[in-house]
Amino acid sequence: MATGRATVLVEPNKLETWDVPVVEPEHGGALVRIVLGGVCGSDVHITTGQAGVMPFPIILGHEGIGRIEKLGGFDTDYAGVPVKPGDLVYWSPISACHRCHSCNVLDETPCENSRFFEDASKPNWGSYADFAWLPNGLAFFKLPDGADPLAVAALGCALPTVLRGFDRCGPVRLGETVVVQGAGPVGLSAVLVAKQAGARDVIVIDGIESKLEVARSLGATATVLLSDSPEERRRQIYDIAGPSGPSLVVEAAGFLPAFPEGVDLTGIHGRYVILGLWGAIGTQPISPRDMTTKNITIAGATFPKPKHYHGAMHLAAQLQDKVPLASLVTHRYAIEDADKALDAVHHGKVIKAVIDPELSPAS
Amino acid sequence: MATGRATVLVEPNKLETWDVPVVEPEHGGALVRIVLGGVCGSDVHITTGQAGVMPFPIILGHEGIGRIEKLGGFDTDYAGVPVKPGDLVYWSPISACHRCHSCNVLDETPCENSRFFEDASKPNWGSYADFAWLPNGLAFFKLPDGADPLAVAALGCALPTVLRGFDRCGPVRLGETVVVQGAGPVGLSAVLVAKQAGARDVIVIDGIESKLEVARSLGATATVLLSDSPEERRRQIYDIAGPSGPSLVVEAAGFLPAFPEGVDLTGIHGRYVILGLWGAIGTQPISPRDMTTKNITIAGATFPKPKHYHGAMHLAAQLQDKVPLASLVTHRYAIEDADKALDAVHHGKVIKAVIDPELSPAS
Amino acid sequence: MATGRATVLVEPNKLETWDVPVVEPEHGGALVRIVLGGVCGSDVHITTGQAGVMPFPIILGHEGIGRIEKLGGFDTDYAGVPVKPGDLVYWSPISACHRCHSCNVLDETPCENSRFFEDASKPNWGSYADFAWLPNGLAFFKLPDGADPLAVAALGCALPTVLRGFDRCGPVRLGETVVVQGAGPVGLSAVLVAKQAGARDVIVIDGIESKLEVARSLGATATVLLSDSPEERRRQIYDIAGPSGPSLVVEAAGFLPAFPEGVDLTGIHGRYVILGLWGAIGTQPISPRDMTTKNITIAGATFPKPKHYHGAMHLAAQLQDKVPLASLVTHRYAIEDADKALDAVHHGKVIKAVIDPELSPAS
Amino acid sequence: MATGRATVLVEPNKLETWDVPVVEPEHGGALVRIVLGGVCGSDVHITTGQAGVMPFPIILGHEGIGRIEKLGGFDTDYAGVPVKPGDLVYWSPISACHRCHSCNVLDETPCENSRFFEDASKPNWGSYADFAWLPNGLAFFKLPDGADPLAVAALGCALPTVLRGFDRCGPVRLGETVVVQGAGPVGLSAVLVAKQAGARDVIVIDGIESKLEVARSLGATATVLLSDSPEERRRQIYDIAGPSGPSLVVEAAGFLPAFPEGVDLTGIHGRYVILGLWGAIGTQPISPRDMTTKNITIAGATFPKPKHYHGAMHLAAQLQDKVPLASLVTHRYAIEDADKALDAVHHGKVIKAVIDPELSPAS
Repeated sequence: MATGRATVLVEPNKLETWDVPVVEPEHGGALVRIVLGGVCGSDVHITTGQAGVMPFPIILGHEGIGRIEKLGGFDTDYAGVPVKPGDLVYWSPISACHRCHSCNVLDETPCENSRFFEDASKPNWGSYADFAWLPNGLAFFKLPDGADPLAVAALGCALPTVLRGFDRCGPVRLGETVVVQGAGPVGLSAVLVAKQAGARDVIVIDGIESKLEVARSLGATATVLLSDSPEERRRQIYDIAGPSGPSLVVEAAGFLPAFPEGVDLTGIHGRYVILGLWGAIGTQPISPRDMTTKNITIAGATFPKPKHYHGAMHLAAQLQDKVPLASLVTHRYAIEDADKALDAVHHGKVIKAVIDPELSPAS
Repeated sequence: MATGRATVLVEPNKLETWDVPVVEPEHGGALVRIVLGGVCGSDVHITTGQAGVMPFPIILGHEGIGRIEKLGGFDTDYAGVPVKPGDLVYWSPISACHRCHSCNVLDETPCENSRFFEDASKPNWGSYADFAWLPNGLAFFKLPDGADPLAVAALGCALPTVLRGFDRCGPVRLGETVVVQGAGPVGLSAVLVAKQAGARDVIVIDGIESKLEVARSLGATATVLLSDSPEERRRQIYDIAGPSGPSLVVEAAGFLPAFPEGVDLTGIHGRYVILGLWGAIGTQPISPRDMTTKNITIAGATFPKPKHYHGAMHLAAQLQDKVPLASLVTHRYAIEDADKALDAVHHGKVIKAVIDPELSPAS
Repeated sequence: MATGRATVLVEPNKLETWDVPVVEPEHGGALVRIVLGGVCGSDVHITTGQAGVMPFPIILGHEGIGRIEKLGGFDTDYAGVPVKPGDLVYWSPISACHRCHSCNVLDETPCENSRFFEDASKPNWGSYADFAWLPNGLAFFKLPDGADPLAVAALGCALPTVLRGFDRCGPVRLGETVVVQGAGPVGLSAVLVAKQAGARDVIVIDGIESKLEVARSLGATATVLLSDSPEERRRQIYDIAGPSGPSLVVEAAGFLPAFPEGVDLTGIHGRYVILGLWGAIGTQPISPRDMTTKNITIAGATFPKPKHYHGAMHLAAQLQDKVPLASLVTHRYAIEDADKALDAVHHGKVIKAVIDPELSPAS
Repeated sequence: MATGRATVLVEPNKLETWDVPVVEPEHGGALVRIVLGGVCGSDVHITTGQAGVMPFPIILGHEGIGRIEKLGGFDTDYAGVPVKPGDLVYWSPISACHRCHSCNVLDETPCENSRFFEDASKPNWGSYADFAWLPNGLAFFKLPDGADPLAVAALGCALPTVLRGFDRCGPVRLGETVVVQGAGPVGLSAVLVAKQAGARDVIVIDGIESKLEVARSLGATATVLLSDSPEERRRQIYDIAGPSGPSLVVEAAGFLPAFPEGVDLTGIHGRYVILGLWGAIGTQPISPRDMTTKNITIAGATFPKPKHYHGAMHLAAQLQDKVPLASLVTHRYAIEDADKALDAVHHGKVIKAVIDPELSPAS
């Protein structure tokens, strides 16, 4: 029987490379040969155990691009586009159950029965692997002709997350002033989307100048250093936005003190959307009166729908020749070197790292 | 092997009662014993062949309420509510494919692969029958405690259609003046919803006084006879709405000349939603300049989503003691008398007819 | 020269009754003989000085119904409805400036130049008085025929505030479960509007059983006592709402600890709108992660637009025969007894108090 | 007394150059020295009488950029930005009355009392003139620093009209396929806005190749010639959009047969917004059933709000260095040569013509 390699998290902080069987696709599903598996900051939290108990052992990786190896009885992708073996596809890592309150009453994600991981001994869609077995219902989409897999992988699941967030709080409006807290993948995605949607000013706050430089390359019109005092940061932002302040602020820092600062920065009648606080557990003091007197809205948003993955893929393809998307992938690792990849992400050494099954392990 | 009766449309205008096998539910589906099968105006068009060629032979009936006979491996309905055999359920007659452009890019219905009918020789969800076999993916919902099946069946698929239409054109607003063209099931549903959503004036136009009386019983605040001239109808409506005119007009007549009259009736900055023109094929002269100078929107809308069926069921249950919903079901027919039911609907003799499997055929 | 009485706040906690000149209306304005001047909780905060420094001396009262005494050159109200002396009118107490960022870029209220009070020595629209001089730009609306001034006055500026809040966070949806924190005028208005807009369940929390009784008379379907523990309150609410929780929560308590409780009560994918925290200064610990994992939105909202006053007036008129609105006005006071009125409101002895210029002072 | 020149339309087709008094600004208004007065296609219809009877004699010109000569007692523009004599400003040519149903109940434009023209013998805001006297309430906005008046004038009132239309039908969405019918100023504005808002494909239909070339310079990604057959045009568009069709179609042709073609081109679940049919009077055959089966919305939209003028001005300033906006102004005329300007616009010889008061008449 054919097998492929996969990075298995056996228990917190214990990674192994396993040979797992390559299984026929189920009806409606697909078997995909991985081209790139994105390494997401969440993978670090999962590996360390901070993200909670997982159904160990699991195969890591929820971001992936691959080539169809075999189709399970359908000849279209999940947007109705014809596909055949050899085609490059991108996928949403979560299937909606289509039979819960969120799915069928509220039309919202996440659904109550979303399953992120499958036991490593079973057919598996983890993307730190040679193959991903996409089950029926897990939406995959054919890359548009000419799309560069690196460009689509560059912002990982952060880009669909941002599209989902802007769906939740209302789209970026032509000419508005947007502030983005944090220049990691979520923040960079917010910069890209805000700029593409016609924001006039996109101001990014981060502590690392090299990240702010990347933000500028993706469309940020101004950057603010976290090393400046909060008052100074606010002054710089209001100098650009004018006295009414920014009309949209995006929390993409995953850093608890960013929350009250974001509420404070949000201009009158403005919106604040929180996308980046998965890692930050705890509370912050918020004044309800400030929310009423400024007439502002705060929206939390989480898991994207398939349409956001579809939109993210097309957006990356549309922009790959205009902004340096592919070059955001600064590091590639072999399947066997997943620990090195996670370590590099953990220590902020990379903009984006990917697992590339064609690479040999670093010696 | 167990069998049940079913009304089969063998070819246009040829109805037969067949004994069909009662099949085990598939995984995710359910086998349901029909309590009431609604007779919809569309069934008449399907029977006569006006609705186009169907995959004959088919079992008629897309509106249904039944009791769970057997579940296919799940113990919740499609909103996550626990269910068990014996529970009353209501269902959407169409499954979304969850793998087309409408489903996964636009998040809209109808999806491109919706399947309305299945060959009568196969497991089947047609509701003019003793049993309905609900396939996996066809959303069914448990009736709330105390809900009267007659009240839920009374407006049939018209009620979810109206909820879907108001989703499309924007909800009815508190205090607005709504005009409804036509007092059939779609029009009556529009009256009910508009009134419940807080419309101040709900004005209904129809040619039959007895239907207008029913409309008033459901909340219409004024009625206008089609026998009056268009000018007189307009005058009566504007007397109530005031010089700015109705802010929302609903086409529920399925009658071609209603279209330009509806555009004309729509007040400045108003909305016109077209729900009832499935039967009316053809064009009408419309002035684009009237649309711009009045600043109006026209929305066509069709197939409900599962959430609209869920909402319709709960709305009927919520209102069953306040408005005479159950009494809208004026006629019941045995499975063998489906032809009589269709004939009665065709000739406008009923408000709502249902198939009741417990009835014996009329002699 | 003609004069009229007016309650003047000379400085914090110092009320006097003055005779002030009755001045001709300016072009576009109106002179109005007060029928009822509503006593709002904010008036208490203004009187005590808690609401900040005002341009003393000021005439109290921002809620009013009156009869047109004289018109300033227009023969329509601010909705284009013909008016003449003797007509009853209701007004928004704040003029938009129509020349600031909020007015002409964001189309939002409050505008940056809103003026609430005018010096008592100048023509004045304060409503604790015999006459109100409505300046040009201050929108007044003719009461619909048959409208009872008491019904329109009963919920005061709380009703337009609620309409504005639901405009901000999205309207109440047919069939949803709404929780209202607080059964003062804002909370009662939220109950009324939620019920009229078709909410299935409207659950109100308050500490005073008699207020909850009033809430039930306006449409609350369930009530929860503040004397129960937070856990018990939550349990009662989730028993009704189901495991997904309430889809809409309204802060109408003006009580700081209500804020985190409201965030906690809000169901998945739900909305929380803060209307009642003008009196509560301070912060509360809020978890951003709860907002993202529950996918919820919090909206602060403040000053209504003229359309919300117009809508509130029509809603009250529409409902005055269906719910006991007029009887909410439990106390009437003479102009000279404004101090007693404010004291009664301050001590929660009234549901709604009004100033009635026809009354003689209590001896 | 100081006077200035102005182009007066004395009666249909009779233009004269008058010397009119230069009047002090009223309170809240401004006196402005005209820098550029845009020549709009509507001016042609007004001049020929096709646009209906005007309050002759009138000063032509509703598009203008000028320098503040004198302010009427305010030192900010209508967005709250400080202004002083010498500053460049741009204005909305219509004041809302703020006291009609559209203004105060529906929050919509046009308002019922909008006044477009004032008698030429009175203080006047017509822009084919040396000076414009902007009355109180007519919103003017300071050009952002560095803004090129030619760039702001280039698309005239078409650009705010397009922003208003997209406000009405919902904003352009990132990645969508937009079809624009017509490459006049409205169509070119739609191209610019759609592209800036992140549309992936912007396909323009027109009969004149040189106009299509301009459309491409502003962001059109594909162009279709009207000389191709309707079937061929449809094929070209669907080849790009895919089988689901364009999600947004913009009528900017002002040509009656464009209406049914636009309905036909609109893809499933799509939107069609009609912006350009002021010139086209009459009806076209439309099928309501096509609207329901395709689930589409048609929105008519007309007069912009001040916020759309503000947005248009800032958008032009933001883009002036990225797209060749200023060069769209292909022709300049002296005040005395207004007839030549109108003739050139009428015969389609120009992309955009402006009146430039500094020019001497062509000999």
